[in-house]
Amino acid sequence: MAQQKELSSVTEWRIKMADGSSEALAPEPGFACRAWLALKVLIMGLVLKVCNFFRKAWDMGQNEPKKVIHCMKVGMALTVVSVFYYMRPLYEGTGGNAMWAVMTVVVVFENTVGATVSKSLNRICGTLIAGSLAIGIHWVVSQSGKEFEPYINGISVFLLASAVTFSRFIPSVKKRFDYGAMIFILTFSLVTVSGYRVDELLEMANSRFYTIIIGTSLCIMITMIICPIWAGEELYTLITRNMDKLAYSLDGCVGEYFNDSGSSSDGAKASDKTLLGYKCVLTSKATEEAMANFARWEPAHGRFNFRHPWKQYLKIGASMRACAYCIDALDGCVNSDNEAPELIKKHMSKISLKVSSESSRVIKELARTMKTMQKSSTVDYLVGEMNNAVLELQNDLKSLPTLFINPQPLQGTDCPDKKNTGAVALMDILPLVTLASLLIKISTRIEGMVNAVEELAEMGEFKSVANANEKNQCPVSKTKVADEHKEDV
Amino acid sequence: MAQQKELSSVTEWRIKMADGSSEALAPEPGFACRAWLALKVLIMGLVLKVCNFFRKAWDMGQNEPKKVIHCMKVGMALTVVSVFYYMRPLYEGTGGNAMWAVMTVVVVFENTVGATVSKSLNRICGTLIAGSLAIGIHWVVSQSGKEFEPYINGISVFLLASAVTFSRFIPSVKKRFDYGAMIFILTFSLVTVSGYRVDELLEMANSRFYTIIIGTSLCIMITMIICPIWAGEELYTLITRNMDKLAYSLDGCVGEYFNDSGSSSDGAKASDKTLLGYKCVLTSKATEEAMANFARWEPAHGRFNFRHPWKQYLKIGASMRACAYCIDALDGCVNSDNEAPELIKKHMSKISLKVSSESSRVIKELARTMKTMQKSSTVDYLVGEMNNAVLELQNDLKSLPTLFINPQPLQGTDCPDKKNTGAVALMDILPLVTLASLLIKISTRIEGMVNAVEELAEMGEFKSVANANEKNQCPVSKTKVADEHKEDV
Repeated sequence: MAQQKELSSVTEWRIKMADGSSEALAPEPGFACRAWLALKVLIMGLVLKVCNFFRKAWDMGQNEPKKVIHCMKVGMALTVVSVFYYMRPLYEGTGGNAMWAVMTVVVVFENTVGATVSKSLNRICGTLIAGSLAIGIHWVVSQSGKEFEPYINGISVFLLASAVTFSRFIPSVKKRFDYGAMIFILTFSLVTVSGYRVDELLEMANSRFYTIIIGTSLCIMITMIICPIWAGEELYTLITRNMDKLAYSLDGCVGEYFNDSGSSSDGAKASDKTLLGYKCVLTSKATEEAMANFARWEPAHGRFNFRHPWKQYLKIGASMRACAYCIDALDGCVNSDNEAPELIKKHMSKISLKVSSESSRVIKELARTMKTMQKSSTVDYLVGEMNNAVLELQNDLKSLPTLFINPQPLQGTDCPDKKNTGAVALMDILPLVTLASLLIKISTRIEGMVNAVEELAEMGEFKSVANANEKNQCPVSKTKVADEHKEDV
Repeated sequence: MAQQKELSSVTEWRIKMADGSSEALAPEPGFACRAWLALKVLIMGLVLKVCNFFRKAWDMGQNEPKKVIHCMKVGMALTVVSVFYYMRPLYEGTGGNAMWAVMTVVVVFENTVGATVSKSLNRICGTLIAGSLAIGIHWVVSQSGKEFEPYINGISVFLLASAVTFSRFIPSVKKRFDYGAMIFILTFSLVTVSGYRVDELLEMANSRFYTIIIGTSLCIMITMIICPIWAGEELYTLITRNMDKLAYSLDGCVGEYFNDSGSSSDGAKASDKTLLGYKCVLTSKATEEAMANFARWEPAHGRFNFRHPWKQYLKIGASMRACAYCIDALDGCVNSDNEAPELIKKHMSKISLKVSSESSRVIKELARTMKTMQKSSTVDYLVGEMNNAVLELQNDLKSLPTLFINPQPLQGTDCPDKKNTGAVALMDILPLVTLASLLIKISTRIEGMVNAVEELAEMGEFKSVANANEKNQCPVSKTKVADEHKEDV
């Protein structure tokens, strides 16, 4: 009975078709149902996105545990500084300005020690200078009479804020004191403007200054003691890692051209990551500069003393980039569709591979020099070997034309039609010749890297290795060969 | 009499020399005198340095008046916001939190509109979300009982600060919401921690929020109304200017190699600035990315609508950098000591110069397209011309070997010693061949630029020029030639 009642309560719609049959129209899902479906899709999409985001974040955390530790350090610093709120004597001690300690921690705590120290010192100095100046002006103004005060204050804020903002554009200021300049404006404005109301200006400034000192010293302590991340160390690692990448790229590019060009391009794609390592060098300029800038604020740590020549790392980075530009052009050669005839390729393959492997050996030795921080005893020898290989390459290039002017069965022409045969040769070997020429240029630029690293070894007082005997193995004096082949490039 | 007295009061020291003569010893300057001298030198040095600094600043101000105007805008915003302190009703209205308005202005006011808007929105959203969350947690905690409050607060600060700090490492968050994340941590910590003391939490949060709104809207208004500096406009100018620089560099480098190589190097140095223009392209990546990032926050302005495809500018920048890498390698050729024989140089000079001038014409046309924001009617024609020139260059390269296999009076050998003559040719012309090969590669990469700019023209809805007749002038279809000569590279 209940079922029958239910049936009758549902209205059924039927349509009569042209052929006499009738068709029931299913009731459309209600608005609520559709909204629910849409919401479900929306939520599922959102959940998926969030899951994706978290998976990425998790991967990043696993790959770079240093970052996770940094985050926990920030949390810890904030928790510690909030004790100032909970302990009444400490809170009273700061004159109710504990807020500034929290703020300082949030704003000043950076990833690397250098950045934290730089921001801390900037904040302290900016606050101190601006505070004294503002209080000085306030005192002078208060002697002269109340009625002019707002005007003088307004004008001084306008002038100083404009001037200091302008100074932030000047590169030398921007690089080191940008944050300090901002804090200067902030403090000066706050003190000058609030001076109109607050009479206990000196006392307030005092307690505010102390809270900032507390905040910054807490940050510096935590950032230095618990798993410190040194900007200098990061810069050093970046440069040495990039050197290795450069070496593998160079080897890989030349190797791919000569060995794998016959194989499918899918096979070549597998080692793309190694091949394209040089692109990291191309794009690392900004990071290098930031790190070098922070590193100079850092105290002695690990193997680096306080005045370690961090600027020299930028020079090394620049010389590496000069190499990388050539490798990029070389990579263009490798990826061009045009194929040199197998015969010539084979002829050039051995020596080109030798040049590239000798070159990358020099780069790897430089990376090793930096990693061990010991003056290399073999780098001169390796540079000599590289230059010998370059000379050999040049000799082989000289022998190339003869190879094709002699009626080799290249085009199947029995008659030695010099013009045609010679012409085909030069056009066909154009990428090969370019590759050789770029290899020679790369070897010159590698010498620039060698010089930069040797300068660093001098300035950074790298230790010498005891067994200097290996130096005598150097078959050709480095500079002699360098001069000799530079003229050929 | 007075003079005599003075004379006698000064003790004179004399030394008897070996030859009987005597010499007066001048009295040594006293400590005060020496200190005064040292101080004078120090002060003069300092004054000189300061003068230098100011001269530099003055030059910068003259060269970039926009920066000076920005500084005055900052000063103005701060002066206006300090009115809140001086007018009692306004001050009372903010519940004594006028400080936050000043702070907001100092922190949020940036050079470009996009940066200011981005920071403002970040600050508002960060404050709003963190404030609501903190008050919510505070409410829940206050229901559960006083004794757990410090612990729960501490733990929540630790967890949220760590998590949000971690999120700042994720590239997508870092690019757009870095500042917001920092403000989130700041606000959450301040509200949570101070919630222990202040009972009027909601009211305080309210007034603080309003002051931030006041500060940010003041900044946005001033930055948009008075001589606005748009990040988008800056990016646009940077890219077009760099394109011109690239074109002049390319022309200059090739021109220098063929024309001025005979002249003194001092003469060549004069145009170094033009030659090295491509280096600006190499180093502008970071600026481009920052500007593109800010530009997306900007409302429609000038010729750019709200959703102008700013990301495409990064692609154009990347394609320009690919060109610039090749120009850097080419610049290496030009500056090498090795000179190709005059004869071959002359032979290649005309066509190489033609290729470089056609290439730079294409680049200049792209720059013009961007400057006028009109689809170019001639770029296809120019690309065709460029590719024709490249084909000619390749033909000339083909004719090169014959030139030297025929016993030209190169080495003065009458007997056509093929091996030697041919050998000398290839080694001597190595830089020349490399230059040609790089020119061909540059033309390929310029086509990448053309594609990127054409994509931009589509996406940015550039207007077409009415007279499309010129298109018919195109002597060789663009893609056809491109395919043809790509195989030769």
